[in-house]
Amino acid sequence: MDGLMQPRPLTIAHLLERAERLFAHKEVVTAGGERLTYADVAVGTRRLAAALDALGVPAGARVATFASNHRRHLELYLAVPVTKRVLHPINIRLSAEHLEYIVEHAEDDVVFVDRALLPRIWPSAERLPKVRHWVVLPDDSSEPIPADPRVLHYDDLVAAATPFAGSFEETFTLADENLASGLCYTSGTTGPPKGVLYSHRSTVLHCLGTLAAGLIGLCESDVVLPIVPMFHANAWGLPYGAMTAGASLVLPGPSADPDHLLRLIAAERVTVAGAVPTVWTSMAPRLRAHDLSATRFLLGGGSAVPPALSETYRAAIGVPITHSWGMTEISPVGAIGGTRTRHRDLPEADQVAVRAAQGQPLPLVNVRIVDVETGRELPRDGDAVGELQVAGPWVAGGYYRVGADGSFTEDGWLRTGDLATLDAEGYLRLVDRIKDLIKSGGEWISSVELESALTSHPDVVEAAVIARPDPRWMERPVAYVVLREGSGITGDELLAHLTPLVAKWWLPDEIVFVPALPKTGTGKISKTLLRDSVLPG
Amino acid sequence: MDGLMQPRPLTIAHLLERAERLFAHKEVVTAGGERLTYADVAVGTRRLAAALDALGVPAGARVATFASNHRRHLELYLAVPVTKRVLHPINIRLSAEHLEYIVEHAEDDVVFVDRALLPRIWPSAERLPKVRHWVVLPDDSSEPIPADPRVLHYDDLVAAATPFAGSFEETFTLADENLASGLCYTSGTTGPPKGVLYSHRSTVLHCLGTLAAGLIGLCESDVVLPIVPMFHANAWGLPYGAMTAGASLVLPGPSADPDHLLRLIAAERVTVAGAVPTVWTSMAPRLRAHDLSATRFLLGGGSAVPPALSETYRAAIGVPITHSWGMTEISPVGAIGGTRTRHRDLPEADQVAVRAAQGQPLPLVNVRIVDVETGRELPRDGDAVGELQVAGPWVAGGYYRVGADGSFTEDGWLRTGDLATLDAEGYLRLVDRIKDLIKSGGEWISSVELESALTSHPDVVEAAVIARPDPRWMERPVAYVVLREGSGITGDELLAHLTPLVAKWWLPDEIVFVPALPKTGTGKISKTLLRDSVLPG
Repeated sequence: MDGLMQPRPLTIAHLLERAERLFAHKEVVTAGGERLTYADVAVGTRRLAAALDALGVPAGARVATFASNHRRHLELYLAVPVTKRVLHPINIRLSAEHLEYIVEHAEDDVVFVDRALLPRIWPSAERLPKVRHWVVLPDDSSEPIPADPRVLHYDDLVAAATPFAGSFEETFTLADENLASGLCYTSGTTGPPKGVLYSHRSTVLHCLGTLAAGLIGLCESDVVLPIVPMFHANAWGLPYGAMTAGASLVLPGPSADPDHLLRLIAAERVTVAGAVPTVWTSMAPRLRAHDLSATRFLLGGGSAVPPALSETYRAAIGVPITHSWGMTEISPVGAIGGTRTRHRDLPEADQVAVRAAQGQPLPLVNVRIVDVETGRELPRDGDAVGELQVAGPWVAGGYYRVGADGSFTEDGWLRTGDLATLDAEGYLRLVDRIKDLIKSGGEWISSVELESALTSHPDVVEAAVIARPDPRWMERPVAYVVLREGSGITGDELLAHLTPLVAKWWLPDEIVFVPALPKTGTGKISKTLLRDSVLPG
Repeated sequence: MDGLMQPRPLTIAHLLERAERLFAHKEVVTAGGERLTYADVAVGTRRLAAALDALGVPAGARVATFASNHRRHLELYLAVPVTKRVLHPINIRLSAEHLEYIVEHAEDDVVFVDRALLPRIWPSAERLPKVRHWVVLPDDSSEPIPADPRVLHYDDLVAAATPFAGSFEETFTLADENLASGLCYTSGTTGPPKGVLYSHRSTVLHCLGTLAAGLIGLCESDVVLPIVPMFHANAWGLPYGAMTAGASLVLPGPSADPDHLLRLIAAERVTVAGAVPTVWTSMAPRLRAHDLSATRFLLGGGSAVPPALSETYRAAIGVPITHSWGMTEISPVGAIGGTRTRHRDLPEADQVAVRAAQGQPLPLVNVRIVDVETGRELPRDGDAVGELQVAGPWVAGGYYRVGADGSFTEDGWLRTGDLATLDAEGYLRLVDRIKDLIKSGGEWISSVELESALTSHPDVVEAAVIARPDPRWMERPVAYVVLREGSGITGDELLAHLTPLVAKWWLPDEIVFVPALPKTGTGKISKTLLRDSVLPG
């Protein structure tokens, strides 16, 4: 016997129309001076929706973006899915090879590209004949715009359109909540990039997850700054979350300069910001030079937040960096770190340890750990280490145009490739990537824990530990370390710092000081690139 | 093209298993001394689930409760729907006629009843032959338990059962999210009571709505007290919301004594409580005698919260009563009142006016106002008055076992029967029930506004204004007023109090002082009963 509730679908159209009806006056600010409101963005979205029709972009077609975080990108985030097309934000830092691969694979019909980014993508255009239009998003760059009939101008396009006047929401039926709304490719550290195809349903449910109080808890009084790029796993859902909650939205534009970001946080009284740890690291030395008193919640994700980094923020501005654990395959947020009620009275050091965990899953998300070899579920006792697997309505069940894939279990859970523990309160602690774990003399060494211990030294900016083949022990850890400018610390001094923090046999065989560590397109330290560059092929 | 996310259903089983895995240690306290945890409740639920199987209760069957708010009732809230049966909480204050009507209409298979409430329902048992079992929930009463083979004892039943050991969640498929999970009957002020059949999907989505930050925003650090009965529109979703958020839950048991409730709030450091205005009114004179400093959010719903009542709380304890607008048909919460960011700097009187509104709709809920005669949608300008209609995935689309019903529009929206305005921020302000509006000389008078003006006088405890037929004006308002004990105010003095507050022709023709006003089963003032008792039949 089914219930008798209204068959209303979960759609991004609802989120847009909610912002339009309830929060028309709230601000959408793009760094550089454009101050608009959700009413303005809604009008822009309604024009863009009509323009996509005029361009003859079919329903279900992929519409790509190659752009930084700004208002026009937000209009694309809305107009594309609410007209039942599929938004495909492309990572602007991809190699030409990967870039061309995913545009081909996605069969993008149109690509919207920042004028400043034309040099990174236009040279590929001749090898991408299926792209019918390249639409240039204006910015303050003066890159030459190719004289090519396929090239159009965003502002001309929307100016010529008559805004769609009805309710997008009313165009959806219940079945449509499963329509694809977005497509993001994973960074592809092994093999070609793989696409995750989000639905309206998954996007709306994830959005409600970002609103849940006491976790991220986006709300009307927030001013939300997604530093994380809009091409990186939907900017963690912050744009959709902010507009649903009625929070103001601040978009940082193309610059990742730490002072630019800090000035923006101060000037706009930002309350919630999200960024990868490397960006938080870049801002850390300058915190006290800005008034960051409005901040209430800083999210770090994409890779583990070193506890020392989080504590630097807590000491300087009273707000730690909270783990937002996720993956592109999880829309992306799966769990939120931080302390809960029962940790309040713990000694500070214990609270630091709690904050170092990846946290508890959001409502609707299930996690479990399984024995890597047997596939059997392991106890949630805080000790057992197993592969982390995830299930939930905003977790991928397959990859776009990929057949059967070892990334999913027989019962439909996502294998994350991470080793983790789970405790009796559902706290998730990542131990390592399965492939980054170092096997020395039959025992496992966690590269992540070693890196945390290294970055807890004030002179260490970044560290990566990888395995070096060893005739006797099979593998031994080697640390690659970036020191802060002017530091004169030696490898032996750093080993002495590690000694009380880890088991003696975990101590790296060598500490190599390097000027920088290789990064992936999303700004994470890439151990794959590091291995390729330092280990004998 | 559909997305490729996992087909995970939204089910109450997830909420239970979430509380079990993440919040096993958080407390579930029942007034009177029973201090348990979610782990205990989960064990009880797993036993009860097995006991329902042992009783042979079929899938989809209705399982009724006739009980106050306590831990065993919570176990029923969980065990019944997670085993795909339908929970039917019955209002304990119904007349025997209505009670028998709905048990018959619902075809309840089993009824779980508080021992103390046996005298109210057992006399009906012989007229309810389809009820196979009556299960007695122990309490501190010593009502005689009927010696009848149909009568069972809750604690014996669960003690004999082997707890279900698997994952309830895994027993559901995507299609099952639409399964009926609960059934509540409206209070039936006109005609027989009508049943609203909730689904797992609607219940989970509503639950996420109660978690949205800045609105009710249930979170892990909360201690939640549903004073509103669990038989009244699912206790506004507070039990499911609390356990999903990981908040502690405090259940008040059978007593609605104001001092009992205030002592409970103080002793348990309650942060969030929900009750109908008449209960808040009963507690108002005693606020300063208790330490209520932990409270952060007090919900009032079921009928309009008089602004003066809300301000009494704000003055005494710093927390106003916030409107939680809803209906049984809306699961029940549709909108949440209170001020938002832009009201912060308004003069206090203006903020009071904002708090007097029913508020903004929750995410996923749509509201509109339409012309009562033409059905055309009216502008959201804060002035136009029309019938309030509601749509959303937790809003009823029909009544249980009722054919076509004038309560729904052709496009599937619920007609609320309320007159309201909507403003440019989506703030909903109820003007009156359509049927309570008074038509005098061709103009409308709002009974609700007159009642607010009356209760703004410190000597007025409650007021109800109804229409009296009038040969000249068609209808004229008459006020029925309950004064606080010892007040010597006269009708003329009260009219003088009203004069600056309302239009002159709105002033009631008569003010009648009465010792009490008739109430519905859910504690709302019943104008239907009042009309029946005072107006010539």
